[in-house]
Amino acid sequence: MTFTPTDYNPYDFANRRHIGPSPAEMAEMLDAVGAPTLDALIGETVPASIRQQKPLSWAPLAEHELLAKLKEVAAKNRVMTSLIGQGYYGTVTPPAIQRNILENPAWYTAYTPYQPEIAQGRLEALLNFQTMVCDLTGLDIANASLLDEATAAAEAMTMAERSAKSKARAFFVDQFCHPQTIAVIRTRAEPLGIEVIEDRVENLDPSKVFGAIFQYPGSYGHVRDYSAEIAALHAQKALAVVATDLLALCLLKEPGAMGADIAVGSAQRFGVPLGYGGPHAAFMACKDDLKRNMPGRIVGVSVDSHGTRAYRLSLQTREQHIRREKATSNVCTAQALLAVMASMYAVFHGPNGLRAIAERVHFLTQRLARALKAAGAKVSPKAFFDTITVEVGVGQAGILAAARAEGLNFRKIGNDRIGISLDETTSEEVLARVLRAFGIEGAPPHRAALGFPESLLRESDYLTHPVFHMNRAESEMMRYMRRLSDRDLALDRAMIPLGSCTMKLNAAAEMMPITWPEFSTLHPFVPQDQAAGYHEAIADLTAKLCEITGYDAFSMQPNSGAQGEYAGLLTILAWHKARGEGARKVCLIPISAHGTNPASAQMAGMEVVVVKASANGDIDVDDFRDKAAKAGERLAACMITYPSTHGVFEETVREVCKITHDHGGQVYIDGANMNAMVGLVKPGEIGGDVSHLNLHKTFAIPHGGGGPGMGPIGVRAHLAPHLPGHPVTGGEEGPVSAAPWGSASILLISWAYCLMMGGSGLTQATRVAILNANYIAARLKGAYEVLYMGNRGRVAHECILDTRPFAEHGVTVDDIAKRLIDNGFHAPTMSWPVSGTLMVEPTESETKAEIDRFINALQAIREEIRAVEAGEISAEDSPLRYAPHTVQDLVTDWDRKYTREQGCFPPGAFRVDKYWPPVGRIDNVYGDRNLICTCPPMEAYANAAE
Amino acid sequence: MTFTPTDYNPYDFANRRHIGPSPAEMAEMLDAVGAPTLDALIGETVPASIRQQKPLSWAPLAEHELLAKLKEVAAKNRVMTSLIGQGYYGTVTPPAIQRNILENPAWYTAYTPYQPEIAQGRLEALLNFQTMVCDLTGLDIANASLLDEATAAAEAMTMAERSAKSKARAFFVDQFCHPQTIAVIRTRAEPLGIEVIEDRVENLDPSKVFGAIFQYPGSYGHVRDYSAEIAALHAQKALAVVATDLLALCLLKEPGAMGADIAVGSAQRFGVPLGYGGPHAAFMACKDDLKRNMPGRIVGVSVDSHGTRAYRLSLQTREQHIRREKATSNVCTAQALLAVMASMYAVFHGPNGLRAIAERVHFLTQRLARALKAAGAKVSPKAFFDTITVEVGVGQAGILAAARAEGLNFRKIGNDRIGISLDETTSEEVLARVLRAFGIEGAPPHRAALGFPESLLRESDYLTHPVFHMNRAESEMMRYMRRLSDRDLALDRAMIPLGSCTMKLNAAAEMMPITWPEFSTLHPFVPQDQAAGYHEAIADLTAKLCEITGYDAFSMQPNSGAQGEYAGLLTILAWHKARGEGARKVCLIPISAHGTNPASAQMAGMEVVVVKASANGDIDVDDFRDKAAKAGERLAACMITYPSTHGVFEETVREVCKITHDHGGQVYIDGANMNAMVGLVKPGEIGGDVSHLNLHKTFAIPHGGGGPGMGPIGVRAHLAPHLPGHPVTGGEEGPVSAAPWGSASILLISWAYCLMMGGSGLTQATRVAILNANYIAARLKGAYEVLYMGNRGRVAHECILDTRPFAEHGVTVDDIAKRLIDNGFHAPTMSWPVSGTLMVEPTESETKAEIDRFINALQAIREEIRAVEAGEISAEDSPLRYAPHTVQDLVTDWDRKYTREQGCFPPGAFRVDKYWPPVGRIDNVYGDRNLICTCPPMEAYANAAE
Repeated sequence: MTFTPTDYNPYDFANRRHIGPSPAEMAEMLDAVGAPTLDALIGETVPASIRQQKPLSWAPLAEHELLAKLKEVAAKNRVMTSLIGQGYYGTVTPPAIQRNILENPAWYTAYTPYQPEIAQGRLEALLNFQTMVCDLTGLDIANASLLDEATAAAEAMTMAERSAKSKARAFFVDQFCHPQTIAVIRTRAEPLGIEVIEDRVENLDPSKVFGAIFQYPGSYGHVRDYSAEIAALHAQKALAVVATDLLALCLLKEPGAMGADIAVGSAQRFGVPLGYGGPHAAFMACKDDLKRNMPGRIVGVSVDSHGTRAYRLSLQTREQHIRREKATSNVCTAQALLAVMASMYAVFHGPNGLRAIAERVHFLTQRLARALKAAGAKVSPKAFFDTITVEVGVGQAGILAAARAEGLNFRKIGNDRIGISLDETTSEEVLARVLRAFGIEGAPPHRAALGFPESLLRESDYLTHPVFHMNRAESEMMRYMRRLSDRDLALDRAMIPLGSCTMKLNAAAEMMPITWPEFSTLHPFVPQDQAAGYHEAIADLTAKLCEITGYDAFSMQPNSGAQGEYAGLLTILAWHKARGEGARKVCLIPISAHGTNPASAQMAGMEVVVVKASANGDIDVDDFRDKAAKAGERLAACMITYPSTHGVFEETVREVCKITHDHGGQVYIDGANMNAMVGLVKPGEIGGDVSHLNLHKTFAIPHGGGGPGMGPIGVRAHLAPHLPGHPVTGGEEGPVSAAPWGSASILLISWAYCLMMGGSGLTQATRVAILNANYIAARLKGAYEVLYMGNRGRVAHECILDTRPFAEHGVTVDDIAKRLIDNGFHAPTMSWPVSGTLMVEPTESETKAEIDRFINALQAIREEIRAVEAGEISAEDSPLRYAPHTVQDLVTDWDRKYTREQGCFPPGAFRVDKYWPPVGRIDNVYGDRNLICTCPPMEAYANAAE
Repeated sequence: MTFTPTDYNPYDFANRRHIGPSPAEMAEMLDAVGAPTLDALIGETVPASIRQQKPLSWAPLAEHELLAKLKEVAAKNRVMTSLIGQGYYGTVTPPAIQRNILENPAWYTAYTPYQPEIAQGRLEALLNFQTMVCDLTGLDIANASLLDEATAAAEAMTMAERSAKSKARAFFVDQFCHPQTIAVIRTRAEPLGIEVIEDRVENLDPSKVFGAIFQYPGSYGHVRDYSAEIAALHAQKALAVVATDLLALCLLKEPGAMGADIAVGSAQRFGVPLGYGGPHAAFMACKDDLKRNMPGRIVGVSVDSHGTRAYRLSLQTREQHIRREKATSNVCTAQALLAVMASMYAVFHGPNGLRAIAERVHFLTQRLARALKAAGAKVSPKAFFDTITVEVGVGQAGILAAARAEGLNFRKIGNDRIGISLDETTSEEVLARVLRAFGIEGAPPHRAALGFPESLLRESDYLTHPVFHMNRAESEMMRYMRRLSDRDLALDRAMIPLGSCTMKLNAAAEMMPITWPEFSTLHPFVPQDQAAGYHEAIADLTAKLCEITGYDAFSMQPNSGAQGEYAGLLTILAWHKARGEGARKVCLIPISAHGTNPASAQMAGMEVVVVKASANGDIDVDDFRDKAAKAGERLAACMITYPSTHGVFEETVREVCKITHDHGGQVYIDGANMNAMVGLVKPGEIGGDVSHLNLHKTFAIPHGGGGPGMGPIGVRAHLAPHLPGHPVTGGEEGPVSAAPWGSASILLISWAYCLMMGGSGLTQATRVAILNANYIAARLKGAYEVLYMGNRGRVAHECILDTRPFAEHGVTVDDIAKRLIDNGFHAPTMSWPVSGTLMVEPTESETKAEIDRFINALQAIREEIRAVEAGEISAEDSPLRYAPHTVQDLVTDWDRKYTREQGCFPPGAFRVDKYWPPVGRIDNVYGDRNLICTCPPMEAYANAAE
């Protein structure tokens, strides 16, 4: 035998791990598609006129090479004890939660719970989060969740504006709010014409404002009762917002008890790692009468087809995709995974544990304050929870340096003060180091009294619901988390073919660094030299994203796609303004745009002009030209999505960009569909001036059951000076997020993805994403009409299946979506961008076997529809209407017109490994009519049979 | 309101996380038990005469304190690149496997698959392991798995002795076997009277031996064909064993093709971290005609009650608990979790990937050899795979030092040679460092040819089964691992009330360090100064175990409880021998002993004398006295279990020990039931001379689906000099394991457990374990008879329920065990130590809620039995006999005499979160009659419906 070495590379992450089909399978698929080669298919799909010329440049790394590199980079971060506070605190992530939630694909690969039947587990966890927030804030209703405390505060401002009966146009901001909160509020207020009055609470004139926000505890530590101010505001029909801290509220009087209308804050310190800025879940709670004005996602309780209690997202009709240009908020992505973690932290500790933690932090602070005072330091405020300020005058630099020598970061306030915030992780040893930094040796005094008046003590109970009492032991806690995750269908069990959402593989190697302490424990405001590893990663990711997009600069600040849109539009407006063209306000948006586009434009104070679509779904270029001309010197921008939301590479994109530029406008290209472009087309080359990238779609950040996301924006060089700034790190423009680099820790996931894929792997991923979509379109021909093919009969990375013809027989798009659950699939995107359709996006990560299973399922559903069309069975009697089928259906009597087998095991369903939804079809109307958004009473949790 | 600080400690791991019942619940439970306080209950349970006087001393750590301490200790290990080889190699653990198997409680908390209906997932993974081993070794049948390569080789020796028709009493050992393999073979051979002939293969005289073992590739690198030697052995009716390497076999001719009868080796380099010695899975494969002599667990294929294919453990009748004093092996614990990992590594890479890895390692080695030779070095052997030896003469120390300076560990061979083994992790950069250590600058030559003759190339295919081809993409791989784990019921979903197995919480924090590179990447034979962290941990764990047991020294070498027994008996025998009393060979063992006791004594060459039990199950002290007297000066030892295997603290234990000592014997106290003693009773104080501790029972190492385990032995001072030694680290006696500190990495789990619990927490755990067991016994009174109470009506940490009275009505213990699956529970231990009974051990980690659910289930089962007793339904028609119920039962026609609801949702079963077994009751007889122990053909894997 003669030896021939193999040329197989087992470490080729892109082609052996990330991309689903093997080369042999791709050949079969091309055959089905009717294209001779993948090159040929891409040639027919992506117009040659827009193709990039140079391939992406960098070589791929193997998984172990990546992890070695990340370890090297991690070592460049310096892990110190940060007592900076300012909205971010050290916390102990319970190991059971880290392992079983944050590091568990059953949780992190889940999608937003729009299909509630397959999302009961995370919906329960999010309902726990809402209950926790309501309890601790003392308010009636909470959402789950917002992006960060600063944007939550800004959302509260606009919510107050919408809700208050006051006619005033100003909003009062307590000057002791966190600086980044004030800055984001200012960013948001300006385009909306809201005047921001920043002052001491003592100077508040309630008659001048529609609302006010107070920080409680204040950024520099003080706690006080705002009841009088709130009453005065109410007397003027203005509303009160309290930005607060959940841990403090375990000890302190709750905002609800002071009369507050809205409370906001961050749940970070409930077990969510700092991560150099995020991701963390912010919360918002409000009084009941304001609930329909609350932004974000709210989990509610409804019933299923058996009358059993079931959870769902409530009030979805408020979402931007419904309201479009009338939208008042573009909030879409939440921080679901982090909200789940925070809620589990509360479940883990229960009210007794949380109170004990709060007391411990407080008494440590009180002892610190006493020791400092005893040594002659000037310590304020008089009443505090966990934060004190020390006046140090010209000694500031010396003390900060001494602190650094002790491995500590204090907060530098002005040039003469130092802030210190203690937290759950503060030990006696840390306390001693703090004192040494002030030159005080020896242990601080042990006895501690309350550091605030007893009148500020909380009097009400919280977390009385059994769920916060049932899981004291880790065995039980572990099983609770497992049970919840088992109720859900996530990417770790099946394809999630969601058009426009790009549910691709989130590889284990990509996820690993985020829980390494070198990355997870960094406070966002540490001196940047302590975050050299992060900055190396961010710089390299930026360079790669610039190469991918053809842009010149990136801001990593936006925490979601919608926030990226908003930041991008602000950047455009700032540029216009800097050129003396501040009057440019018109934004052209095609009718097919994602609802966040007009919502973001609205928030940026722009005037949205809708452009028609032509019959084939493309932008109507004539209409576009007319409307651009009409806007003329008022044209600020157009917002387009490429390839279009219909999944087609429009040939006219360069022309649309040129028209915009000719009229002095800027082109915003929405990056939602970037998964069809990476390596093939650069938005910055085809005419784009700004784009956001959904790193959680295209760049492998997991969806986390509805967040986190990251929506950094790339811009051409002329816009770079106008990217968002930040009060801590500088820059000319205002910030859009609380943290300078957004949710920095998850940038590592996208970076890892880019590094392992290499330029060629990313390009091949795009090509296979297009192949997979065209394969589905080709195989489903005859069964379903595929809408909006390109002019050579190809789709891009997704395809739209028309289900409207079935309506006359009584079969709805809902029926099909729920029937797919019986097959073990998450439904495709429903009724968007075209009502009555399903948009399917397989992504490159799905194997041919899984795609074939999905095709089998859809074909079998089509046969069931044919039976209805043929009158063999009515839609009402068919398995389509009874879907999804549950074990409850099986166990009870059966008088259906089809068999149990037909109902439960349609083609494509696994037999042994079948996913069983825990509830039947959920009644949406009931849920919205009977809004219950906190945990139902105890007996509901008695899951075991009698 | 006046403020009162709470005294709740949220970080109390023992009482808030590990121990299940809350103080309030314990009060209720004591009420049910009829004891006023926990102290009183313990007083009634544990005889005062044996109680320890001083409480355990050390203070507990919180979870975050533990992790901080472990980080500190980890930093004391120095991570270098080890090219030492000698049976241990660097490997890349695929991140998807690390996350989804090794760090996933669904896999690591599972029990041994004795209840196959709830273990189909891990059984499939283990069947994949067997298929992989059979394919790569070219043999017919493989087990899954053995403890390490050295013990596997020793097992192969005794298996050859049992199987060979040769009358010779000697075993030939290739002198190029790994030194630790030779040493363990010598340890095992000596008490059995087997002569070990260690020599060069060229000097083998087949007529003198019943078998021979060859290392292929050899420890110093050479590869050669053993076909001629094997044929010569066969001509003399002797058998041939080949110790081999799975990665080498991807390229080299397989042992089966050379005619080998048995192959053994380690699967470590298939993705299992080095971990300073383990745990890793060893394998053994053999020709079909030897299969019934093979030790260890073998997974086989059978059918279930629906005639569907199902997996189970085959040939269980060969196990030691059946053969007892006729046992030929005490193998019990396997390395299931690690075998699963290795099998998944093969699934992950497939044959092409494995071949590519093997080629890459080989060509790197070939290039290294050429570069060294080109520089004038004396390199051997001529034919090699991944290991070469360099003669360096007096330069040895200098080169080893230069290597260390390059961050490399070479193997020191004698005083004049250096061994270098390359592996999967070796990069070009490492290669350059190796050469620099020899003073050679510049890159090695790039072209590489085979480093062995083409006649040694493998000609046959391997891993042709579809399972090794289906999971190329991580999406699919992740889903495959999830599907398998979902088929199983492990501790992450429900209580596993297995008497004698102590299935307690394996906390997430305890598991974290084992995958930190500072611990996971250390080769077992690195210079000890590089493992200072490990040695600190081991020393402190040893100190704590000494305090707990009252012993003076520990050996961490034994990798399982049974191996601990064996090592302990050898220690006793060595002590006798050193005192000139080598004739002491009698070992007294009570009839109720665990089967491994006589098996271990048998292996140690001892004469087992069985002691009777009295009516109440206790040791019959009179019989014991008689038999001790009869043995007289031949008495070597007694082996007792305390509390007894019947779950009772026998009052006579001190007397039994005294009798033994009076006759010059030593007392071996089996630590299987140590969970009833920690903090209350010290075996070393009540008369024990040696004990093993099952760290995987009492000290929180997870069971891993049937391993790993750790069975270190504690001894009194006089025995300490006779503890196992090791060729690499020294010591007078021979080793029992391949690695000096056994499966060192999982010692961290037990250490973490001890540190977080503190002495008081460990003691409280014991007390609550006893409370939980007595609560079950009390609550089930009336329903079942509880056998073997102590003389004050208490059980220890477990209780035995008598089900024999139901036999006359046709209800078997199997019916009850399988019916419990319908309730969502793993069955208790069946028919051991008393046939027809169930032994229940709840452990301290179960909550009252879960225990009550279990009690409900058993009570409901009793009602079902009553219906049979009353003639309302026959046993055959009852849900007991049809159990476990599957979805398949529900979906098909139903003509049973009870409802679907009654069948599937008995009391205690979860409704929404019910566990559904993937198969019905499995036919054991069919499986043993039709032995299939490799993966069934492809169509069997087509899980999706048509």
